[in-house]
This record gives sequence, structure tokens and C-alpha cells, in this order.
Amino acid sequence: MSIWYDEVFNSNLRFGLLTTQTLFEGQSPFQKVTIIETEALGRALLIDDLWMTSEGDEKNYHELLVHPAMTTAPNIERVLIIGGGDGGTAREVLRYRQVKHVDMVEIDGMVVDACKEFLPSIGSAWDDPRLNVVIGDGIAWVENEDRKYDVIIVDGSDPVGPAKGLFNTKFYENCAKLLGDDGVFVTQSESDHTFLDVHLDMVQSIREVFGTADPYYRNVMLYAAGSWSWTYASKKTDRRVFIEERMSFIESQCEIYNRDIHRGVFAVPNFIRRRLDEF
Amino acid sequence: MSIWYDEVFNSNLRFGLLTTQTLFEGQSPFQKVTIIETEALGRALLIDDLWMTSEGDEKNYHELLVHPAMTTAPNIERVLIIGGGDGGTAREVLRYRQVKHVDMVEIDGMVVDACKEFLPSIGSAWDDPRLNVVIGDGIAWVENEDRKYDVIIVDGSDPVGPAKGLFNTKFYENCAKLLGDDGVFVTQSESDHTFLDVHLDMVQSIREVFGTADPYYRNVMLYAAGSWSWTYASKKTDRRVFIEERMSFIESQCEIYNRDIHRGVFAVPNFIRRRLDEF
Repeated sequence: MSIWYDEVFNSNLRFGLLTTQTLFEGQSPFQKVTIIETEALGRALLIDDLWMTSEGDEKNYHELLVHPAMTTAPNIERVLIIGGGDGGTAREVLRYRQVKHVDMVEIDGMVVDACKEFLPSIGSAWDDPRLNVVIGDGIAWVENEDRKYDVIIVDGSDPVGPAKGLFNTKFYENCAKLLGDDGVFVTQSESDHTFLDVHLDMVQSIREVFGTADPYYRNVMLYAAGSWSWTYASKKTDRRVFIEERMSFIESQCEIYNRDIHRGVFAVPNFIRRRLDEF
Repeated sequence: MSIWYDEVFNSNLRFGLLTTQTLFEGQSPFQKVTIIETEALGRALLIDDLWMTSEGDEKNYHELLVHPAMTTAPNIERVLIIGGGDGGTAREVLRYRQVKHVDMVEIDGMVVDACKEFLPSIGSAWDDPRLNVVIGDGIAWVENEDRKYDVIIVDGSDPVGPAKGLFNTKFYENCAKLLGDDGVFVTQSESDHTFLDVHLDMVQSIREVFGTADPYYRNVMLYAAGSWSWTYASKKTDRRVFIEERMSFIESQCEIYNRDIHRGVFAVPNFIRRRLDEF
């Protein structure tokens, strides 16, 4: 029997997919984890009943999270992923032969196990020997780790529950310490529509720590109202200058991302530009 | 009592808004016209139960439909709008003092009347003396008219019902005849997700008529899956070169549109680029 799964935002706006089967449902120490089969977008992951990713739409999110950092950072040998339990971010990072080691620190082992079993097309790089999956707290990891990274990618969920600590200055400071001056930090930074205030706070906090922080925007179908943002920050690296060899390689691999998309997504609409100027 | 209004696409994907009041409901000779009050996006217009526009989101659509053409066309004295019954497109066009005359040809008088009464913030330029509203068939208008235009803007609904004839080569040829070689044609061109095949066919048909046709993309919350497209075409005018005076003026007025957005939205994602290359 088909039923509708809807994410309801703010009690008055919803995005729903018709679901034909529940493949997995579990309650971890942190959250409720659900994987369903949908007609429109294939298999999809929900956490606490909020859309996280789907087979039909995930590249809109993962390619945009990963490649602006990876095509511009001077070095990409050592990469840290915080979160990313579905494996899509690691998959995109590991496309680059220059990557030697990836630590992926995901708090919820149930997400990783369920995604390995039911979303293998998203996490298709679990067996790559360069990938070290750590089930643990990413916030503690960046506080305690002392080996440097070239790129840090934050692929967490919304600022409630276990991901809350990914949205504050202390966390960004710890990330900055783990990056050299030309290291690149990137994070998903919520919807510019339905989470505008959270988004603006994030950009501002990251700017305080790194000196600059450039938000960028593109459509992700699955997320309420369809518009999503990510934020790029680096003390020294210029996000406008990409490494040609890496760009030529990756744009031949991607469904969405290419050099025009890279340049285009950093355009900031006026209503956001005016709000950021207020800070 | 609050109820959900959902647009259901393809029977398996839906976007819904909680509705507190129905302000208008009527059946015209062409279609069902509904205006409701929503909590999330203010007042909204539906045609045949499909989302058309809302107070909270309309600028994402109207600014992007209008300004790429209006900031690049060498002349903007005479403008033709096909459709556009809510008045938002005419409002954006009439911001430019250089505009001397606008013909707006909308097939459904009920849409215009209902929007004048219940969506006055969208159609805020109805009383501008430069605006000539014609209730009639835009397809016949471009076939029979012989006075030239500088810009033609197509603001129709989906390719079913009365808008169907806006999606074929004959219509584009008639528009091209009414424009000089440096005139600019722009049309909404459907969702690159939920209407991808229709979108690709439109771009290709317009390309056959004008020699070039550049699709562009941005988020519109209200439309299924949140991603929308428009297509820009001109025999001689280059969409990358804008008239500085007009750009400086309009980017100070807009919620979304500015020169970076103009440059950015024309980035074509790989999956579309590959399909367009097949033609």
C-alpha cells in the first residue's frame, strides 16, 4: 500500500513523496532512522522524519558540498568529513586520486549501517582503503585531533539534536586550527528560505573565524522549499581560482557540477546580501 | 479551519501549504481559478489546482523572468507580455522609465479580475498609463500583429489547456518576426526536474528559430521540486552584455536579481548540457 511521507516545516509548508515500502526503521541513541522506497526519487533516508537524502536527488547536494572545496584547495591529501553517514560525501571526495586519507567522523553508527545496506548506490566507496570511518562525535574530534587536514567538510543535519554543536564559533575555531592557512572549510549551511536566520548566523560566525566566508546556493529538491546553501571559507585560498587539472577531471564525472556552476552558485541574492551587510 | 492545499506532480510528489481561507474560487471558460490565504507564503493563486504564484515567493519568479531581458535588450520601448495575468511581470517591466508601451495579452479575464482584487501587492502597476491590458489569445496576437516589439516576454502556464500553443515552433517564429534582429525573447520554460523533457524540447525549438537559446535556472519555492527555468533568445543581442545604467538602477530595486545573479543563473548543469548536445 502506498502512503505519503511528508516533511512538514513550521507546521504550514510540506514536501511529500509517495512511498511504496519501508525498508528500515530504527531508533538509535540519537535519533529515529528511516529508509523508504519512493516512486519519485527512489530510496530515501529520513532522520527524525526529516528528509536527508534520496537516490534521485542526492547529487544536487553532494556534488555541491564537495567539489567547490576540492577543486580549489591547494592540497587535498588529507580530508576530514564530519557527519556524512550516507556515504555520498566520501564517495565524491574519493573520486580524486590525489586524496590519500579521509577521516569520516559520524556520530550515529545506525545511519552508516542502514545506508550501507539499503542505499549502496549513494555510499559506493565504503570499501576504498583510503577511507577511515569513525563512529564518534565530530565536535570532540576537532577539539582533540592534532594532525592537520587540507580540507574539512561538514555534512551534518539541522541545528537540533546531535548536530547542534556544529553550528557555533567554538566548532569553527577548532576546524580552523586543524587547517593550514590555505586549507579549505566547507559546510552545508541550511535553507536560505526556511532557515534564513540560522543560515545568516552561520555565515557570520564562520566569517569571524576565517576572515571570509562565501555562501553559495542551489536547488535540492528534497529539502523544504527546494533551495539550499553551503558556505566556503579559507584564510588564504581564493574560491574563484580552481586547479585546472582537477576541474577538468571532475566536471567530466559529475551530473551537475562544472566550472560554470562553480562560478554561478556563489551569486548572492539581494535580500541576503543586505542582511549580511547589517552585521 | 485550516486545510492543506497540495500540488501533486505525477501522482507521487507533492508540495503543500496550509491554507486558512479561500478568497476566490471561479470557473472561467478556460480553467478553474482559486486564490487562497496561506500561512507560509501569504496569498496564493492556483489554476486548475496547480500553484501559479504567491505573495511570499513571486519575486523569485518575476524578477528572473523579466530582468535578464530588460537589462540586455538594446531597446526596451515597446514590450509584449503574453499571459502574466497576476500582473507581476508587468510590474517588473514598468519599473524601467525607458519603457513607453506594454501590451499584455492574457487569455483569461477572470484571472486578471481576481488578481486585481485579491493580489494587489503582486499586480501593483495596473494603473500605469503605459500598460495596455488585452483580454485575448496571445497565440493569435503574435500571428496577427504587425507593429514590432523590442522585448517579448512569455509568462504562461504549463503546456496543457489554453497555454499549450505557447510551446511550439510556429509560436516562436511569430514572436521572432515581431522582434527586430536585436530584439529579445524570453519565456518561462518549465522545471528542469519535473518537466525536463518539455524543457529540453522548448530550448531546442527556440534555438531552431532564433539560432541561439540560453536556458537559465533558479529556485522558485512554489513550483514542484523548487527548481525552475526560463529561456533567453535573440538573433543578435548577447545576454552577457548588460546596459550598465539599467543594471545599476534595477539591482537597487530587486529582492533577488543583481549582476552576479544574472551571470550565475545561466550556468547549465552537466545532465542538461549533455542532453542538449544530443540534439
